[in-house]
Amino acid sequence: MKARVTVTLKTGILDPQGKAIEGALKSLGVDGVASVRQGKVFDIELAAADKAKAEAALKEAADKLLANTVIENYRVELLG
Amino acid sequence: MKARVTVTLKTGILDPQGKAIEGALKSLGVDGVASVRQGKVFDIELAAADKAKAEAALKEAADKLLANTVIENYRVELLG
Repeated sequence: MKARVTVTLKTGILDPQGKAIEGALKSLGVDGVASVRQGKVFDIELAAADKAKAEAALKEAADKLLANTVIENYRVELLG
Repeated sequence: MKARVTVTLKTGILDPQGKAIEGALKSLGVDGVASVRQGKVFDIELAAADKAKAEAALKEAADKLLANTVIENYRVELLG
């Protein structure tokens, strides 16, 4: 089973990397970009064919490793 | 206008970071994870309200900065 975990910063958390990208885009002449926030995406292949088991494993992976849940949110999508 | 650019490694490109995460998940006792590939996601706010202009700016940003198009693919989504 294929799944995707998307990890993004919580609102209000400063994103220096996003700010750097905004500046770089301006200097590269890309206009109209008001703000940029960067996150991570994990494409995961799971052995389990059972949805509930897969979701539990992904949640555990995100809580333990993929996301810093103090400052980040994560979203789990099962892609089938 | 809000948009999301998702950048992922092309198939066949080795992902050492993904391999490291696989190993770490195993040692943390998260079972059933066959493979992990990591990518980046950019949540971008654009001044343009015109879809075509927004898409052109995002494509330019991805080609010039957000993605290394030699080894990465990117997908642009306008979220409205």
